[in-house]
Amino acid sequence: MISVNRLDLDDARVMLEAAKAKAVEIGVPMCIAITDDAGNLVAFERMDGGKVTSTTIAIDKSYTASGAKKATHEYGEASQPGAPAYGIASAIGGRLMVVGGGLPVILDGACIGGIGVSSGSPAQDTEVAQAGVDAVLAKLG
Amino acid sequence: MISVNRLDLDDARVMLEAAKAKAVEIGVPMCIAITDDAGNLVAFERMDGGKVTSTTIAIDKSYTASGAKKATHEYGEASQPGAPAYGIASAIGGRLMVVGGGLPVILDGACIGGIGVSSGSPAQDTEVAQAGVDAVLAKLG
Amino acid sequence: MISVNRLDLDDARVMLEAAKAKAVEIGVPMCIAITDDAGNLVAFERMDGGKVTSTTIAIDKSYTASGAKKATHEYGEASQPGAPAYGIASAIGGRLMVVGGGLPVILDGACIGGIGVSSGSPAQDTEVAQAGVDAVLAKLG
Amino acid sequence: MISVNRLDLDDARVMLEAAKAKAVEIGVPMCIAITDDAGNLVAFERMDGGKVTSTTIAIDKSYTASGAKKATHEYGEASQPGAPAYGIASAIGGRLMVVGGGLPVILDGACIGGIGVSSGSPAQDTEVAQAGVDAVLAKLG
Repeated sequence: MISVNRLDLDDARVMLEAAKAKAVEIGVPMCIAITDDAGNLVAFERMDGGKVTSTTIAIDKSYTASGAKKATHEYGEASQPGAPAYGIASAIGGRLMVVGGGLPVILDGACIGGIGVSSGSPAQDTEVAQAGVDAVLAKLG
Repeated sequence: MISVNRLDLDDARVMLEAAKAKAVEIGVPMCIAITDDAGNLVAFERMDGGKVTSTTIAIDKSYTASGAKKATHEYGEASQPGAPAYGIASAIGGRLMVVGGGLPVILDGACIGGIGVSSGSPAQDTEVAQAGVDAVLAKLG
Repeated sequence: MISVNRLDLDDARVMLEAAKAKAVEIGVPMCIAITDDAGNLVAFERMDGGKVTSTTIAIDKSYTASGAKKATHEYGEASQPGAPAYGIASAIGGRLMVVGGGLPVILDGACIGGIGVSSGSPAQDTEVAQAGVDAVLAKLG
Repeated sequence: MISVNRLDLDDARVMLEAAKAKAVEIGVPMCIAITDDAGNLVAFERMDGGKVTSTTIAIDKSYTASGAKKATHEYGEASQPGAPAYGIASAIGGRLMVVGGGLPVILDGACIGGIGVSSGSPAQDTEVAQAGVDAVLAKLG
C-alpha cells in the first residue's frame, strides 16, 4: 500500500483565487482547472469572457501536467517534428496537451496535483498557472 | 439576433457555496457543477470525499438540465421501459443524464443555466442542487 | 447574470444563402455550418456533392471559430512546428480545427457566432465563409 | 492537502494471483483489472481464453467500483426500471458499469482501490473478484 498526498479542495480554491488575480492583472479572462495527483478534476472556473473551447483545454492541460508530472510546454518541445515524442499530442483521445499552460504541483519531490489554464497565449496561460502554483506552495511549504 | 441571459461566474459561485452548505448539512460530500444556458461549464468543485466517477456525472447532469431546460429526474420518468423517451439515457455519448440531481435555472421563463450534483442518492443530489437554484434565484429574483 | 447577443436562425439562413451563392460562383459544392456564440450548431447544409467527411469538419471549424473567437487559420499559423500553440490541433478530441475555413462573427467587439466551411481548399473554404460573415454583418450592422 | 492510501503494484499482484486461482478453480478464463483509489489502472491480465470484449469491461468495472466506492452489482439493483438510479449505466461514456464483477477494496473505512472481473457470468465474475479482495485484505489487514 502506498500513502500519497494530494491537493484538497481548500488548496484548489487558493490556487484558483491566485490564478484569477493574475489573470485580472494581465487583462485576460481565463478558464482555470485544478486536478489532483491522479488527474481527476477538483475545481474549475471559467471567468466571464473565457473561451468556450478553453473549458476542455484547461481541464486537459491540468490532467496532463498532474498525470505526467511535468509542464505541458515541456511536451511541446519534446514533440516537435524529429523529436522523440513527436505525435504524442493526439494521445489519450487528444487529452495529452503539449501546449503551454499546464503545470504540476511538486511538493517534496512528489506530484500532488496540477493546474491548467487556457484562453490567452500559451505564455500568458503559463504565467497565470504559475501564480496558482506559487500560491499553493506558499500555503503548504 | 437574440439577446439571452446567462449565469455569470459570480452567480455560479453563489450556487456552489449554497449547494456545499446543504451537502455539509446532510453529511454527503458532493461533486457540484454549474453550466451556463448553453450547457458549457462555468464552475465545478469536488468536495473532499466526493466520488471520482461523480466528476463527469455532475457535469453531465448540469449539461442536460441547462441544455434541455428540465430536471434530469423528469427524463428518468419519461425514459422508463414503455415510456416515450425510453433509451434516451445513452444519447450524446451517454451525456444525456436521466438520473436525478440536475436542475435548470429558470428566470422569467427562460433557462439561464443549470446545476448538476452527484455522489449521494439521486434524492440527496437533487436536494443539494435545489439549494443552489434557490440561492441564485434569491440573488437574481 | 450576463446578457449576450447571439445569431438567431434567421441570421443563420442569411449566412447560409450568401455562402452557398459564393460556393456556386467558385464551382465547389460545400458543407456549411453556423454555430451560435456558445459553439452550438444553429444550421447546417451539405450542398449536393459536398464531401461526407466535411460534415464534421465544417461543424468543428464553426465550433472552434465561435468558441475561441478567432479564425481557424490563425490557429494554423500559431500551431506550426516551433510556434507557441504547436500541437493544439488534436485538442478537444480533435474538434479544435486549425485549418482555414472557420470564421467568428464579431459585432461591436463581441463574438455572436461563427461559420465553418469545408469541401474545397482551405482558401476556398475561407472565401465562402467570409461571404457568410459579410452578409450577416450587412444585415445586423 | 489530503493523505490517502492506495493499492501498490505488489498489492495488485496479490489480488491478480488470488483471482486467477479462483478462476482456474471454477474453470472460467477471466479478464482481471486492478485500479487504485482514483480509478486508474494498476495491473491487468487476460487469461488465455478470456474474452476480448471483457478487456474493457473488466477495466471499467474496476474503475466504477473504486471511483464510486461500491460494488457494481449494487448499481445493478439501484438502476432497474423504476429505481432511483435508472439509466446510469450509460454515464461516463458507458464506463459506469452496473453489471456484477466490480468490487471496491475498503480498508479502515476508506476505498484504496478496486477490482473488476469479466468473461463469466456476473455471479462468477463477482466470485473471482471477491477472491482478489479477500487476498489483499488478508495481506494488509
